[in-house]
Amino acid sequence: MKIYTKVKDLQKDLMAYSKFGKSIGFVPTMGYLHEGHQKLLNEARKENDIVVLSIFVNPLQFGPNEDLDTYPRDFARDEQVAKVSGVDYIFYPSVEEMYPKTPCVKVFVTGKSDVLCGSKRPGHFDGVVTVVTKLFHIVQPTRAYFGLKDAQQAAIIDSLVADFNFPIEIVKVDIVRESDGLAKSSRNVYLTEEERQEAPLIYKGLKQLKESVAKGQMNPFDLKQALCTFYETNLHGQIDYVEILSYPDLKPISTLIGQTALVAVAYKYSKARLIDNVLIQGGKETK
Amino acid sequence: MKIYTKVKDLQKDLMAYSKFGKSIGFVPTMGYLHEGHQKLLNEARKENDIVVLSIFVNPLQFGPNEDLDTYPRDFARDEQVAKVSGVDYIFYPSVEEMYPKTPCVKVFVTGKSDVLCGSKRPGHFDGVVTVVTKLFHIVQPTRAYFGLKDAQQAAIIDSLVADFNFPIEIVKVDIVRESDGLAKSSRNVYLTEEERQEAPLIYKGLKQLKESVAKGQMNPFDLKQALCTFYETNLHGQIDYVEILSYPDLKPISTLIGQTALVAVAYKYSKARLIDNVLIQGGKETK
Repeated sequence: MKIYTKVKDLQKDLMAYSKFGKSIGFVPTMGYLHEGHQKLLNEARKENDIVVLSIFVNPLQFGPNEDLDTYPRDFARDEQVAKVSGVDYIFYPSVEEMYPKTPCVKVFVTGKSDVLCGSKRPGHFDGVVTVVTKLFHIVQPTRAYFGLKDAQQAAIIDSLVADFNFPIEIVKVDIVRESDGLAKSSRNVYLTEEERQEAPLIYKGLKQLKESVAKGQMNPFDLKQALCTFYETNLHGQIDYVEILSYPDLKPISTLIGQTALVAVAYKYSKARLIDNVLIQGGKETK
Repeated sequence: MKIYTKVKDLQKDLMAYSKFGKSIGFVPTMGYLHEGHQKLLNEARKENDIVVLSIFVNPLQFGPNEDLDTYPRDFARDEQVAKVSGVDYIFYPSVEEMYPKTPCVKVFVTGKSDVLCGSKRPGHFDGVVTVVTKLFHIVQPTRAYFGLKDAQQAAIIDSLVADFNFPIEIVKVDIVRESDGLAKSSRNVYLTEEERQEAPLIYKGLKQLKESVAKGQMNPFDLKQALCTFYETNLHGQIDYVEILSYPDLKPISTLIGQTALVAVAYKYSKARLIDNVLIQGGKETK
């Protein structure tokens, strides 16, 4: 396993691989790897000749009042996880290496970003598409792997690739959960003991909603109301948002009939903002 | 020589070439090819295994009152020019193929675009970087060729590549001129007979300015004044702009000493807006 910190070095070495017809699987992360990331790496390992992992806490995707400085970092541990997961190259650049000067050209998100996390974190997805565009050019992957926990991000990356004709296959990987149902996240370490104990109920609420849909409840407004009531009754943090939107378009919907929909939650605890979601398939119209 | 109209077909075939380690030279154009384009193609032919020419009149880079509808087109002739120039692939997509739907992600220019043509053609360079980004992903060239006649465009493409780490070498090719000095342009066909006769004076003025600099005149304000007076005295159209800026940063300068500078002109005739420029190297500071 080799570790690169310079754009030019990695780009040059990976281009040589592409020329031998090798496929490159790419997993972009902000580090502090957990089983969710490992699942991405495992998928990449299965499907490609070379696996590249990037670890870069991207300042552009953090807002002024967000947790950029305190975002958890542990490169030594990440290195071990990468080794175990069969990573060939780690790209671990500095902020100066990625953003050496004020850019003349910028990329920004005009659709899909005024809902969910996008509406709560202005500029967040502009930062995401900027770093992903750069990383795609540096790594030139055959396939890139994104977790469905960030469902809005995955939908926006799909648009990025389609709108700009990137010659890259985007592979989306299911959410990995703790045994009690809590979605794995680097930010779970911020939870107090009490918060950690009740946090699995975030997912429990989503599962209950999914069951209601299976039983025929197709009204997004009623489903959302029931989910909010469940959280307000059982949890001690704050709902940041609960939304039910079409997927992957992320548009408001008035019925689940004939729709693939995303039910997404952001929930705020004292020091952690957690996100979770389920994708649901609405029933067919009954005549 | 093969002609492609579909993104996926060209992308797939060119990726296969890259995998054999072949180098790809790319010349993006809006067609109606003249000797300036041929020079780009000749350079590409010399330096690469495969030469790809794109012909696409990009609506995004035309303003509402510009000449999109009347922009000259002649695919049959372009095809002959391409064949003679040793082109391997022509990419000739429709507008629908390039822009099938409203994009969710956009790219735009924040620097270098508030001067010269950028200030006169708002949104023009956003359209240029959008189509170039897409074409770069479709063709994945080793080298891409741009003419210095569009010096501002070349400077902005340099920034695009640097800001987003495109793994592409940008090759800039000198302006090709008619025997009387007029810069070759697809838009020269719009000139009346009288305009065509006096138009070489645009370049004559630039050459005179260059001679003044060689003789020690280092004040951009005086040089610009003299050039404007020359045009006002000798030409019968209208100056759109005359500017002297640092190159490639395109910033205002107060002296030519120690500077590489771009002297750029846009000149309006009845049905044609012509551009021309020279790059000049200012003298050293004398002690």
